[in-house]
Amino acid sequence: MEKLTIIKVGGKVVEEEASLHQLLEDFSKLPGKKILVHGGGRSATAMASKLGVDTKMVNGRRITDLEMLKVVTMVYGGLVNKNIVAGLQANNCNAIGLTGADMNVIQAVKRPVVDIDYGYAGDVTGVNAVGLKNLLDQGVTPVMAPLTHNQKGSMLNTNADTIASEVAIALSEFFDTELVFCFEKNGVLEDADNDNSVIPVLTPENYEEYKSKEVIKDGMIPKLDNGFAALKKGVSSIRIVNSGTFIQPGSGTTLKL
Amino acid sequence: MEKLTIIKVGGKVVEEEASLHQLLEDFSKLPGKKILVHGGGRSATAMASKLGVDTKMVNGRRITDLEMLKVVTMVYGGLVNKNIVAGLQANNCNAIGLTGADMNVIQAVKRPVVDIDYGYAGDVTGVNAVGLKNLLDQGVTPVMAPLTHNQKGSMLNTNADTIASEVAIALSEFFDTELVFCFEKNGVLEDADNDNSVIPVLTPENYEEYKSKEVIKDGMIPKLDNGFAALKKGVSSIRIVNSGTFIQPGSGTTLKL
Repeated sequence: MEKLTIIKVGGKVVEEEASLHQLLEDFSKLPGKKILVHGGGRSATAMASKLGVDTKMVNGRRITDLEMLKVVTMVYGGLVNKNIVAGLQANNCNAIGLTGADMNVIQAVKRPVVDIDYGYAGDVTGVNAVGLKNLLDQGVTPVMAPLTHNQKGSMLNTNADTIASEVAIALSEFFDTELVFCFEKNGVLEDADNDNSVIPVLTPENYEEYKSKEVIKDGMIPKLDNGFAALKKGVSSIRIVNSGTFIQPGSGTTLKL
Repeated sequence: MEKLTIIKVGGKVVEEEASLHQLLEDFSKLPGKKILVHGGGRSATAMASKLGVDTKMVNGRRITDLEMLKVVTMVYGGLVNKNIVAGLQANNCNAIGLTGADMNVIQAVKRPVVDIDYGYAGDVTGVNAVGLKNLLDQGVTPVMAPLTHNQKGSMLNTNADTIASEVAIALSEFFDTELVFCFEKNGVLEDADNDNSVIPVLTPENYEEYKSKEVIKDGMIPKLDNGFAALKKGVSSIRIVNSGTFIQPGSGTTLKL
């Protein structure tokens, strides 16, 4: 199967001019078919604050009321997404910005209220893999904002990691898919204070060991659980890496079954 | 040649819930290949005001400094565009939102400063007709925001009428193209105060007469001049019509050479 690389970058990298510039240059140089999935939470919080809309977070997730939905639709779908798309075009990468509503590429439902009402937060129910494949086959590079829709006319705020994973799983039907999560550290670290202590390979076995020793804990656990789940659903390889070095094959921590 | 309908709707229609709802329903029912081009100026002005960004207009055109560029990129490319796309998807119309940067569909240059510095305003230099045709051939309906890019990484604020005309001219190579400008009146009126006085057909000849009698004047003149210019460049037919009745073939004022 042909190779596909999906790069997920967090908010901070795409929201600061210097790191965004480097990212766009590096991403444009990646050979072969590729997709960029971006966040934008810091910009959304800053914009909400300017507009007098309160930001409420529970368990690290944003509560998205109707006013906040307008903010994230503007900021993720407009400001951040188009800034990236225009920047990639300047680097001769033929990008197209997409939310889940565009070409109905990602369908979702408003998250059911159990203990917490997250408001207009989307839980992904389906990915239009054929539509994305058609774009990729035309030499177009999707740039995906963390927004989906409910197929009833409403946009939904959706976690960017989830979008990256679901898209990777769906496209594994057609491509040998590598999913790369970029963040600020060099990978999964043995010692949080030592950026040179990258664990090069994580398997389900040593992952359990690291967890039992509390070397890996907190926010890293759901990220890695999602990663292993995606591998089981057909994604070929997953890497967790610094956004400055993702372009080097094998850099960071590679998850393997 | 196969028929293509391009509908341009102004800000007010897409910015009010009731008229937007009707528009999306009507537009979804239009048979055949189609494109929607939208404005959003009122929302941009309102958002700018909330953010403390001054709106300056000269000759009916917005002066777009860097802060205003951020506002229009958010509002046109995010809020208004995605609201329309999600609404069309709910009406089973497979829409995709596009700015000029997406798939490089519209290239532009920053308007040269002659007497007035319009800032980050785009003058269209090219349309990627093949890219748009590929989407249309896949059954996808482009929804175009009034934004282009300079191919150097910057978005540019661009008049929606201009985008509609330039796209119609470029796609006339492949399609029998009808361009429909929707606005608040029933068409070009003989008597501005009588909405039943629609001029059904305008030709270059009677257009000159109406102008010399000052029946047609002011802001209508550049709109009609652009319309006749587009006809000369290959667009099959142009209509100016009320946004509530555009779906009825032949309603409003039809321009003919």
